[in-house]
Amino acid sequence: MSESRSHISAKKIAKQIRQGDRNALSRAITLVESTKTDHQELAYTILDSCLQTGHQSLRIGITGPPGSGKSTFIEALGLEILNNPDNKIAILTIDPSSKSSGGSILGDKARMEKLSGRKEVFIRPSPSSGYLGGTSPKTHEAILLCEAAGYNIIIVETVGVGQSEILVASMVDYILLLMLPGSGDELQGIKRGIMEIADDIAITKSDEASQKSVLHSQAACESALKLLPKKYTVWKPHTTLTSAVTGEGIDKIWNNILKFSQILRENGIFEETRKKQLHQLFREQVDLQLKQMFHNHPQTKSFLAKVTAAVEEKSISPFTGAKKLVEKVIRPPR
Amino acid sequence: MSESRSHISAKKIAKQIRQGDRNALSRAITLVESTKTDHQELAYTILDSCLQTGHQSLRIGITGPPGSGKSTFIEALGLEILNNPDNKIAILTIDPSSKSSGGSILGDKARMEKLSGRKEVFIRPSPSSGYLGGTSPKTHEAILLCEAAGYNIIIVETVGVGQSEILVASMVDYILLLMLPGSGDELQGIKRGIMEIADDIAITKSDEASQKSVLHSQAACESALKLLPKKYTVWKPHTTLTSAVTGEGIDKIWNNILKFSQILRENGIFEETRKKQLHQLFREQVDLQLKQMFHNHPQTKSFLAKVTAAVEEKSISPFTGAKKLVEKVIRPPR
Repeated sequence: MSESRSHISAKKIAKQIRQGDRNALSRAITLVESTKTDHQELAYTILDSCLQTGHQSLRIGITGPPGSGKSTFIEALGLEILNNPDNKIAILTIDPSSKSSGGSILGDKARMEKLSGRKEVFIRPSPSSGYLGGTSPKTHEAILLCEAAGYNIIIVETVGVGQSEILVASMVDYILLLMLPGSGDELQGIKRGIMEIADDIAITKSDEASQKSVLHSQAACESALKLLPKKYTVWKPHTTLTSAVTGEGIDKIWNNILKFSQILRENGIFEETRKKQLHQLFREQVDLQLKQMFHNHPQTKSFLAKVTAAVEEKSISPFTGAKKLVEKVIRPPR
Repeated sequence: MSESRSHISAKKIAKQIRQGDRNALSRAITLVESTKTDHQELAYTILDSCLQTGHQSLRIGITGPPGSGKSTFIEALGLEILNNPDNKIAILTIDPSSKSSGGSILGDKARMEKLSGRKEVFIRPSPSSGYLGGTSPKTHEAILLCEAAGYNIIIVETVGVGQSEILVASMVDYILLLMLPGSGDELQGIKRGIMEIADDIAITKSDEASQKSVLHSQAACESALKLLPKKYTVWKPHTTLTSAVTGEGIDKIWNNILKFSQILRENGIFEETRKKQLHQLFREQVDLQLKQMFHNHPQTKSFLAKVTAAVEEKSISPFTGAKKLVEKVIRPPR
């Protein structure tokens, strides 16, 4: 595609997104996730245009170990959120399936049956791109596109295995950790790092377990939280008993999220977080675009095979070989 | 340090390493691990010179969950290896302590008391540099330096938590997984990915557990191995019962390692693996040196603050900002 045609096309897609066109939004996320150079250039132009809308959202990260009932919980929470007719929800679920097993892209919509039928809801499963723990590195870009399309509540679902949460924490405002009722031993299976970044904890499936085990879990979570360093001086995480089946605790969780958002906005922390998130995205972009421009550079393409062969034949070391190759592409310092 | 002085200094250190000087070897590993630019340039010159020795080693990765007795096992195995007076062993242990807790560098030597007193043994704990799971990204370079110093057996110890093993697998010839005797449930705690890359399994501390539990573990491991894809057509992993206290199974493990090495050499796989390892190291070096040259470049230093401010003020998007910055440093394609 020529420079000008692709530019026109990007402007058109961006306009459609800002008008709330779901197909245009889906298409833009696909472009963002693509590894093809021309797709990415188109995606950047769309993102540039979308960022100018200045729309903001409340970004909620929801995490928990496999089996903690994330999909059913999100469905119940989503319906609660939609009680306010002003709300529009985008749900970005990270496909937990590994590279090798293929993954079931269709699974998420089926698991959130009631929400997926609503016009105020946009559900988008992202492939995990082989990332450990399953956060797609393009989730941040997808959030920005959903905001431009007018979704004021963004929910990002990840599997609680450690690394992905840390990544998600750099792009959401609030993190809810889901835990199954169980013994204190199970609690130890949850990595400390995940509890440290949680702004609230929900004990799920409280209808299925015994009263004793549910209360025991709650007490264990609360005492664990007391031992951890506080994330904010103005907010203390709660442990709430919930059930997606009976509806127990779902309204309480949503009220906590609203309270959290209000307190952090009043204290200027919310804006500060957004600034940090933008800064982080910029740094990631610098690393990513540096790598891409290098690998797509004609000089790299001309010399890579030659240098690689020299390294394999041991006529040059990997260290000196890498230096020579990189120096072909980097401008000599003036 | 001036270009020529540092070059002379590097040649001298490399010569000392090739003569088996342990202090020079330690110093070179420290230079390799340093993040200072002048240290790294010195390190690359030393590595270039060391790679030319063409010395080869058998590289053994030893991994297992915390508490599986890696240090005591390595001490027992090391003493077995030293029964052949031609052998010299370098042990690279990855310090498992996290960034935040500081870490105990002295711990490893104390844990391998008998080996650390032997002149044929070089023990080097590496800081994990905050890497998840604890593999220092400079382990490959340390292996090359130890080979140049004449160590023909290199043992790399890592904690079995997933990511570090995959990294270690790209630099060693053989991976031994240590497992504690226990129930089949415990076996499920070991990630599938780790069992997939294991060339053999050792059940440790077999003297401490009941006969029943030990045999149960062995059977569980063997049936798990049967379900996994085979790493090599010419090698089938064994599960061996061992005890560092009674010495049970230690000689069997060493014989298996020698047999493995012989079979893979005969089939040309050993040389093929070495080639892949060198290639992988080269690719990592390209990424690393590209990043370093970019971040140390005067153009980056001049414009980074300005572009960052523009991104934070939202007068430019993170995507376009990153593109503009990278283009200042990359040569325009001809």
